[in-house]
Amino acid sequence: MKNICLEIEYDGTNYQGWQAQKIKGIEPATIQGFIEKVLAKIFQQKIKLIGSGRTDSGVHACGQIANFKTSSNISLQKLKTALNCLLPEDIKIKELKQTSLDFNARYAAKSKIYRYTILNQLRNFVFTRNYVWHIPQPLDLKLIKSEAKELVGEHNFKAFQAADKILKPAVRFLQRIEISAQDNFLFIDFEANGFLYHMVRNIVGTLVEVGRGKLAKGSLKTILQSLDRTKAGPTAPAKGLCLLKVKYDWGAGLDLTTR
Amino acid sequence: MKNICLEIEYDGTNYQGWQAQKIKGIEPATIQGFIEKVLAKIFQQKIKLIGSGRTDSGVHACGQIANFKTSSNISLQKLKTALNCLLPEDIKIKELKQTSLDFNARYAAKSKIYRYTILNQLRNFVFTRNYVWHIPQPLDLKLIKSEAKELVGEHNFKAFQAADKILKPAVRFLQRIEISAQDNFLFIDFEANGFLYHMVRNIVGTLVEVGRGKLAKGSLKTILQSLDRTKAGPTAPAKGLCLLKVKYDWGAGLDLTTR
Repeated sequence: MKNICLEIEYDGTNYQGWQAQKIKGIEPATIQGFIEKVLAKIFQQKIKLIGSGRTDSGVHACGQIANFKTSSNISLQKLKTALNCLLPEDIKIKELKQTSLDFNARYAAKSKIYRYTILNQLRNFVFTRNYVWHIPQPLDLKLIKSEAKELVGEHNFKAFQAADKILKPAVRFLQRIEISAQDNFLFIDFEANGFLYHMVRNIVGTLVEVGRGKLAKGSLKTILQSLDRTKAGPTAPAKGLCLLKVKYDWGAGLDLTTR
Repeated sequence: MKNICLEIEYDGTNYQGWQAQKIKGIEPATIQGFIEKVLAKIFQQKIKLIGSGRTDSGVHACGQIANFKTSSNISLQKLKTALNCLLPEDIKIKELKQTSLDFNARYAAKSKIYRYTILNQLRNFVFTRNYVWHIPQPLDLKLIKSEAKELVGEHNFKAFQAADKILKPAVRFLQRIEISAQDNFLFIDFEANGFLYHMVRNIVGTLVEVGRGKLAKGSLKTILQSLDRTKAGPTAPAKGLCLLKVKYDWGAGLDLTTR
């Protein structure tokens, strides 16, 4: 038996998120669902794929990690070619590697890095329309940066968790939020040991309220401490979010330099 | 009566090209067709839009220029807002300006600039898949550059014209071909007073044959002089092509600095 680990890039625009599911007997198009279908075709048996975590409908990934087990002797190179031939154009396998049998892409993840992209100018671009949140109003970038700092560290992030999930444990260690700008694009990068449902999008939605002047300086800290979802801003659109990397014991992604 | 000129950006992926047409009573989705429909809705009458030229199915534009006449007194700012609200997300009006009544976007065009983009690396990217020609094989960039130089100037470009169009006059003045590279993207920019049908894509297809070593050094000149389409390489895919700018007496695009 082999345990094979995949690094996956996908454009989430046309999918109902990562997780394979059945709703009233109908299977919506999901990334996991598509890859499992292709794996079943290649190996001629049902294959269970374990992702590092779910991504929502419309959310993208440059480095989602997943693993599955097989007793087949197919070479990794051949498997990669077969997968990329059979997968749709908006899902690509970047790399593959064989891992120890006890590796689990979900439980072994040390941290995840998400990037949220905002296009902050009057006019939206046609070519990036599915990958950014277009905000035509001016944003106070300095204030956004200083407010974001208040969230770094270990906190109960209940205030930024989707309202229907508030009964679950909500303490997470947010290692960093880094904000950078290029032309009129604003990138907000988050690294944490785990994220609550909608946590990044709710934080971004709240930071934008501050940047637009709708919430005062100091609001992020107050909202965080309130543990009250109704105090935070709206959920930022899914299309601006991308799972950049997942980190494991061996490093970020599959870190093939250590093979 | 007013003559209004538009600068248009579009993602051609989901369209049957620029030109509005009827095929056996069916109107396929075209850029011109969509804008004319929206103009008719705004002005409550049929409006004829004149584009600087056609673009093929799947070809994109950052700066297509078109004009139309109206007796309405709507402000340009209001018109722009109305157009962008009613147009689909993959067609955007960048700018508008009023021009002299005798201006015709097609006949007044002095030159056009097209960019062809190649992604030259083993792996295709998910996010640029609709905007590049992905070529995994290595390309001899130096050779491509020196061959491209042979085409600059006034020539009969019959050899690079779509085979079914060879009865039309085919002399064009190709002012420049500029080739630049960033990361693994290769940009080939063409400026000419006019382009034959499929001319850019046929030149790119031939340059790539040279770059791959399938055609020898000196081939471009020989093919150009042969006036024979069957000697040139295949037509490069439409998705890599983008109409960057159209130049008029007043400069490139709408050149609003001169208003």
